[in-house]
Amino acid sequence: METTITYDQLSDFTNAIFRKIGCGEEDAAIATKVLLMADLRGIDSHGVARLSGYIRLWEAGRINVTPRIKIIHETPSTAVVDGDSGLGLVVAQKAMDIAIRKANEVGTGWVSVQHSNHFGIAAAHGMMAIEKDMIGIALTNASPLVAPTYSTERLLGTNPICVCIPADKEPSFVADMATTTAANGKLEILQRKNQKAPEGWIQDKEGKVSTNPHELKAGGALLPLGGDKDHGSHKGYALGAIVDILSAVLSGANYASWVPPFVSFLPVADDLPGKGIGHFFGAMRIDAFRPADEFKKHMDQWIHRFRTAIPVEGQPRVLIPGDPEREMEVERRKTGIPLLKPVMEDLEYLRERFGL
Amino acid sequence: METTITYDQLSDFTNAIFRKIGCGEEDAAIATKVLLMADLRGIDSHGVARLSGYIRLWEAGRINVTPRIKIIHETPSTAVVDGDSGLGLVVAQKAMDIAIRKANEVGTGWVSVQHSNHFGIAAAHGMMAIEKDMIGIALTNASPLVAPTYSTERLLGTNPICVCIPADKEPSFVADMATTTAANGKLEILQRKNQKAPEGWIQDKEGKVSTNPHELKAGGALLPLGGDKDHGSHKGYALGAIVDILSAVLSGANYASWVPPFVSFLPVADDLPGKGIGHFFGAMRIDAFRPADEFKKHMDQWIHRFRTAIPVEGQPRVLIPGDPEREMEVERRKTGIPLLKPVMEDLEYLRERFGL
Repeated sequence: METTITYDQLSDFTNAIFRKIGCGEEDAAIATKVLLMADLRGIDSHGVARLSGYIRLWEAGRINVTPRIKIIHETPSTAVVDGDSGLGLVVAQKAMDIAIRKANEVGTGWVSVQHSNHFGIAAAHGMMAIEKDMIGIALTNASPLVAPTYSTERLLGTNPICVCIPADKEPSFVADMATTTAANGKLEILQRKNQKAPEGWIQDKEGKVSTNPHELKAGGALLPLGGDKDHGSHKGYALGAIVDILSAVLSGANYASWVPPFVSFLPVADDLPGKGIGHFFGAMRIDAFRPADEFKKHMDQWIHRFRTAIPVEGQPRVLIPGDPEREMEVERRKTGIPLLKPVMEDLEYLRERFGL
Repeated sequence: METTITYDQLSDFTNAIFRKIGCGEEDAAIATKVLLMADLRGIDSHGVARLSGYIRLWEAGRINVTPRIKIIHETPSTAVVDGDSGLGLVVAQKAMDIAIRKANEVGTGWVSVQHSNHFGIAAAHGMMAIEKDMIGIALTNASPLVAPTYSTERLLGTNPICVCIPADKEPSFVADMATTTAANGKLEILQRKNQKAPEGWIQDKEGKVSTNPHELKAGGALLPLGGDKDHGSHKGYALGAIVDILSAVLSGANYASWVPPFVSFLPVADDLPGKGIGHFFGAMRIDAFRPADEFKKHMDQWIHRFRTAIPVEGQPRVLIPGDPEREMEVERRKTGIPLLKPVMEDLEYLRERFGL
């Protein structure tokens, strides 16, 4: 059921596709690198599995492959960026560059983005800060799949929070998480296997507890981190809401139930309050607070303390956010990236469609 | 079992106690206002119920009532503040003032604080930004009560995240949440009533699922938001970790298991990596992104969309973060603040202790 492809092969192919739809050389390279970071890090739902989805959005006229990405308002530490309907994969990298530049100038930089599209995995952008000895933050809203606590309606996306923090000898701390109990990708796996979901992942269209992963396609919803009120779902809802507001209300993008769907066959609402989808990026220079080497040595001590905590029986150790993805990347750079049959078929379709 | 006291009575009494231990007039007024905001907003665990705890810390020489609170490093958008072992209630307000001043100057302000103590409820500080048409952020670490996913050891505090966002005609969005499934205050209520806790709130000292609220005092731990790995506890753990790092590793305060306990009878570790406990504050001027009136009108629309969502059966409506606390404040300003017998006894003790 699986085919394994080397990173270089997959990268060449993906790059060629982005070139075929009209992306310039630089943009195609950026989009390819960002998209494939998901595959490398084991976030298979956000990598080449979505390539045909981006292409269909382009075919539907919802992605501009030669955008004029520009700052429409700024202060020394902030900017609002208009993504001009470009690939979020590219818009996000350029917006994060602006955040980093501002952090170099005044200590921190904060960029809210309107008029963009899906940006891949948040960590691809937040991690840009690490090599500059900065803390990186990346948020995005997304099409509504999540019901706030007590709601039968989907009003939020899986709205991830990503925070990346450099260390010295230890690998960096990289948290990148949907603000739901479970990411949509995990649910798709259960749907494919026809397996039950744990309680707390989804609700049916009336807002009742469900373990049927197919309910999501029948008017149900993903649940905010926490699952139900007793387990703090109002907190997951608040986190998703904060991501939505910083990404979209602050930038002038669409928010709440108005966020345009990623899939091209679903209609876009006609009473939109903003433009495209929204992101939010932050960069904080470590030495705007304390000397970077001092901070990173303390981060090493912090990480060491957690790694050496006495684990519960049956678990080898306490993980640091980013551990599993980093280990996966090392593995897949060596052995290649496994692609499921439907993903391979999608890529075959693209190969034919563009005569490659 | 309960005595109800007016806000003004309780405020006068609390202020007198802070004056008695040597706080200046301004600091006593600030500490009183911040502490009682918890009682007004219904966060009873963080209000006058803790007054005797602060006094005991002072008696133990761990609180300096005449601190020289100062900036020890800064850039245009950042500062590190040394709280000089002052009351966190006061240090935090002054640090948030600095964040607001910097936001006025360069769009945003970010202040990490070392050498502080417990600061009351985070919303008391984050909400300062709202009246300035800014988004306010307040984080703090706290003494270790929480076990990261797979850990038997407590390495994090309940480390709250507070984000406050102004609206126009609608009341502000005020999220203030522990990064655990349930706040410690909720567990204390169950302990008092000898009632079981839901699964996912706590674990026993071996890291096994427990519903016995007394396990926390027998070497057990509170669980990160999510409860277990299947329900995303690694996300709650990552959130608590981010709060710890921004508050303490960035400022030079103590972190992880080294955070000094709030209760004066527990010893402070002798190999401390920093000073006191740490906080982190942010202020972002709305008009550093888009005109404030435009933003606030969209916030009204955002809030309206959520409030009018079709609720699940048996629930009147979807709540906006801050709704319950704001309604409680209106009520308690009118009818007074109910105090449980043990809290009244504590206050009686303080009255006698200080000859009031």
